[in-house]
This record gives sequence, structure tokens and C-alpha cells, in this order.
Amino acid sequence: MGATEPTRVLVVGAGAIGSFYGAILHRAGAEVSVVCRSDVGVVREGGFRIKSRPLGDLSFRPAQVHASVDEVERSPDYLLLCVKVLDGVDRAALIAPAVGPRTAIVLIENGIGIEREVAEAFPGNPLISALGMVGVSRTGPGEILHNHYGRLVLGDYPSGAGERARHLGALLDAGGVTGEVSEDVVTARWAKCLWNTAFNPLSVLGGGADTATMTGSESTDQLLRALMIEICAVAAADGHPLDEGLIDGYLERTRTFPGYRNSMALDYLNGRPLELDAILGNVLRIAAERGVEVPRLDTIYRSIRLLQDMQARDAEDADTGIAEQVQ
Amino acid sequence: MGATEPTRVLVVGAGAIGSFYGAILHRAGAEVSVVCRSDVGVVREGGFRIKSRPLGDLSFRPAQVHASVDEVERSPDYLLLCVKVLDGVDRAALIAPAVGPRTAIVLIENGIGIEREVAEAFPGNPLISALGMVGVSRTGPGEILHNHYGRLVLGDYPSGAGERARHLGALLDAGGVTGEVSEDVVTARWAKCLWNTAFNPLSVLGGGADTATMTGSESTDQLLRALMIEICAVAAADGHPLDEGLIDGYLERTRTFPGYRNSMALDYLNGRPLELDAILGNVLRIAAERGVEVPRLDTIYRSIRLLQDMQARDAEDADTGIAEQVQ
Repeated sequence: MGATEPTRVLVVGAGAIGSFYGAILHRAGAEVSVVCRSDVGVVREGGFRIKSRPLGDLSFRPAQVHASVDEVERSPDYLLLCVKVLDGVDRAALIAPAVGPRTAIVLIENGIGIEREVAEAFPGNPLISALGMVGVSRTGPGEILHNHYGRLVLGDYPSGAGERARHLGALLDAGGVTGEVSEDVVTARWAKCLWNTAFNPLSVLGGGADTATMTGSESTDQLLRALMIEICAVAAADGHPLDEGLIDGYLERTRTFPGYRNSMALDYLNGRPLELDAILGNVLRIAAERGVEVPRLDTIYRSIRLLQDMQARDAEDADTGIAEQVQ
Repeated sequence: MGATEPTRVLVVGAGAIGSFYGAILHRAGAEVSVVCRSDVGVVREGGFRIKSRPLGDLSFRPAQVHASVDEVERSPDYLLLCVKVLDGVDRAALIAPAVGPRTAIVLIENGIGIEREVAEAFPGNPLISALGMVGVSRTGPGEILHNHYGRLVLGDYPSGAGERARHLGALLDAGGVTGEVSEDVVTARWAKCLWNTAFNPLSVLGGGADTATMTGSESTDQLLRALMIEICAVAAADGHPLDEGLIDGYLERTRTFPGYRNSMALDYLNGRPLELDAILGNVLRIAAERGVEVPRLDTIYRSIRLLQDMQARDAEDADTGIAEQVQ
């Protein structure tokens, strides 16, 4: 870095994932600012306290801590968008105030087809799609525990690996994790989705099931396998054929890994909104566009929608004090 | 009845359904005894208190109230088996002590393929399969509320309508409900199952969803329809083709009926065992035997099994005091 000005990074949505990668880029010499809503007071006071099992202490103080994107005065070189992808949240509008003409937008988010609306809103900006392969969790306000992994797979959307993506990859490497630059990040996204789209929604129907329980029975193993076969068919029809050998590999690795709850299972158990459309609904939309039959994925999607309808109805009954009449 | 000895009936499993039909047969002049486990003291003391919206007071005192089938000294003319059909419950062994050479066994139970084990255990006895079309619930110990309907469809298993079935039908008619004798009760069972196999398990995945919520969204309506199409395919392959017009009729009638929770939804919400194999698992078994693809039914079945695995695991963790480790 030396005499040149450091790379300026803005993390929008500094939860566990966002603050972890912010810390890595800070470690690589970048000037990292953040927008965080809930923990803004704590983070302004003392920065992020990040304990990493593989990397040691990653605590850092952001250059600036904003409560809102509207407070950002100078647009960054890289804007890392790390918010959840939810119905009714306009991510393009959210980041617009901070996006300058040279800002590369980096999406570190779950799901399939989540780039489209951002690409359409900022056609002149480099758009980098990225997948965090990382086990990290928020343990308190401004407090993060990094358990394992950290690799970020990234590339230009819809394909390619330009200078801005390669520079970001190099910064991540310098910061201590692998920044794996891909010429075909959408295929990489489908490969990650193969796991998430099968495991995450099913874990909700399983009452917030953890991976050990899910891979611990032959019955669920067969269902996960059948779901992944449907996902592979959609990916292939969308021009991103996956090696079906991935399926066995994922199941085997998940089975031998200590059990944990995925993000959607945790969101469900904590009453938070689910990234259902990003992770599953968009896959169904693409399947319909491409004429691929996905009866099992569709059944799971509609069952979760019913569960959500029922929860909304129960909440409404509780609000109005009307008791359910059972016959 | 006059000078002839009254028909002797034994109800095994005198819950809401069993005591309701017991009351109807008592009203028709039969001598009705019961085996009930949990409410035996209350019923011995004061009989059943049954309030029927359509029929008025149906309260009655059984001739004998047994805590166990082993106490039965004289085998009945009709043994009405009204217990839940659950894995690990040997229904043939349960009733064996009370079955005499002339006892007609009447199964008033949910599900498909539930006659087989009883037929095999008592090859010399008339076996009558029956479907209660009745809205009835237990409101307290020995206390039943009959809300609506009451018709019992019955016939010999696997087919036919012999003298014993016709006599039982006549008694029901005399008691105030319709005893509809069918030459093909297994097809009638498939027609009832078309509703239960679609609605009951899905209501569990929907968090114990009621019928109003289930029929209140286009998304769930489409899923219910797709499930029923799969069930029709299995019924047809099993030699019991159903009129697919039933599907629209069921959905329409359910939508216009006041919302309620089906028995499996209530069992789920009350932590009781589910009749999952009787209502859905046996349909999957028949589908496999007949080579019918049922991806949606299979997905729902395996999702509920996962939910049960997870509940068992949570219960185990609670018992041993081991907290779930979330990563």
C-alpha cells in the first residue's frame, strides 16, 4: 500500500459475515467503514471484537461507523452488500446513496438470481458476485466468533474476472483468507445453492433441524438427494450444469462434520424473516421459465409458505385477542 | 328387539368416535359395553355425557365398563375397534381376548390398508371396514360434544355387504344416524383418504394449520390439488379409481366450511403420536408396490419424519441436560 491511498471499503449490513470480511480487508490495509443498524452504538464506542479460531484476534475499529447509508459522504471503491435478501427489501435503493461512478458493488449474499435487480439498477458499475464459505456467528453486540473456513469465491456478474475482482481477491489473500476469483461465479453460486436450497428450507419444515439430525437418517438422506437432483436439473437448464458427484460429496461431508444449524434454521427458530425466495423461490421461478419439473422443491416451498401463513394468523389472533376455535 | 336378546356390542377405544357410535347403538337398543383406558373411573361412575347438536342428549351408561380387553368375559356380536392406528400398536393382539367365533370385527379407524393385519389375524371372523363421517370431540373425561354429521359408511372387507354389515347399518339407522352399507368399502376408504392424506400431513408441516388457512391461499390450494392428483393415481393403480371431480368438490366444500383443525393437526399440537403411516405411509407403500411416482407425498412424509426425529432429539437433549451447540 505504502504511499498510495488505501482501498476504501464500505460494508453495508455489518452482521457476522460483513464484519468478518471487513476485518479481513482491514487487516490487508484497506480503509474499512461500515453501515450497521442495531449495534451502531457499541461499534462506534469500541469497534468490532472478533475472535477467530483459525486466525486469532481480528478485532478492529472501522474508519467510520454509520447508522444509515445516507450518512456516507464519499463513495467507496468497494461496497460490500451483506444484508439478507428478503421480499420487500429494495437492496438497490438501500445502497444507492453510497454508490459512486467508480464503486464496485460486491454482493456477499445467499441465493440464486439475486444479482439481477442490482445489475439493472447500476448498469455502469462493476458488479461482483461473491460466496462466503465461512462459519461465523454473532455472539453479542459488535461481537463475532469465527469458527472455521473463510474462503470467498468471487467474480464479475454475469461472468468474467476483471481487474476489480482480481484486486479484491488479492486483498482477501493478503488479509488471511482465500479470495478465489472465478470466471463463472454464477455456476459457483449454483454449486453452493445445491447445498443451501436442499438443506435450508427442509430444516425449517424439520422444526429448525440441525445437520446431524438431517444426515442421520436414511429417510432424510434420500429426500436431500432427490431435492439436489431437482436443483441440478434446473441449474443445467439455466446453462450452468453441475457435476452430480457434488451431491454425494456434500452429503458425505455434512454427515462427518459436527452438527450445526444453517442460517435459515436459526432465522426460523428466532422468529426472523426467511431468505426463502432468494434460496428456493428464485430456483422455482427459473425452473418454470425453463420448463423443468420440480415437484419436491415446489412442495417444500408451498409447505413453508403455509407455515408462514399460519404463524401470521396466530400472531394476528394473539394481537386481537381472538382465540382459535377448535372443532 | 322385544323378546329376542339384544345385539351385544363392545367398543374398544371409547374416545370421541367410539363413544359416539356406542351411544347411537345403545339408542337403537343394543347392549353396549366399552373398554376405555384413561376415563374408566369417570365412565364407571356416571357413564358418558354426550351432547349432540343435531340429536340432543345422547348420554348413556354402558352395560359394562372395562379398563382392559382382558376383563371381557363374554365375546360380543360386534366389536367396534376405534383406537388410533399407530406404529408399534398391535391391534390384533389388543382385541384378541374379546373376539369369539361369531364376533364381527368393525374397524372405525382412519387410513388406507389398515384392515390387512386384522384380517390376517382373524381369518374366520366377519371383518367390517367403516368410515365415520362425523364431527365429534372429547371435551372432558367421559364428556363428548357431537357437532355435526354422523354417517357411518361400512362394508365387508375386502368387498361385499353381508348380513352382519347390513344388520349393523340398520341399527345405526335406528339409532339416528345413517348407516350406509357399501359393496366396495375400500374404494369408499380411498375417497375419504383423498381428503385426509392431503390435508392431515400437510397441516402438520404448516404448524398445525387449520382448514381455513389451508384453503385460504392460492399457493396451498395448488399444493393440495397436486397431492390429491397423486393420491388418485395410487388409488387407480390399486384397483380403486376415483372420480377426479372429487378434488374440486373437497376443496370447495372445505373452503366454505368454518375452519377447523383435523385430527392429525390436533395430535401434533398436543404432542400425541401421529397416524402418519395409516394415513400417508401406507399410500406410499402401495404406490411403491404399484410403481406409481408420488414425489410430493413422499416429500411430505419424509419432512414429517425429520420433524419427528428432531422432536425426539430435542426431548433427548432435554432429558440429558445437553444443550444444543449452535455454530
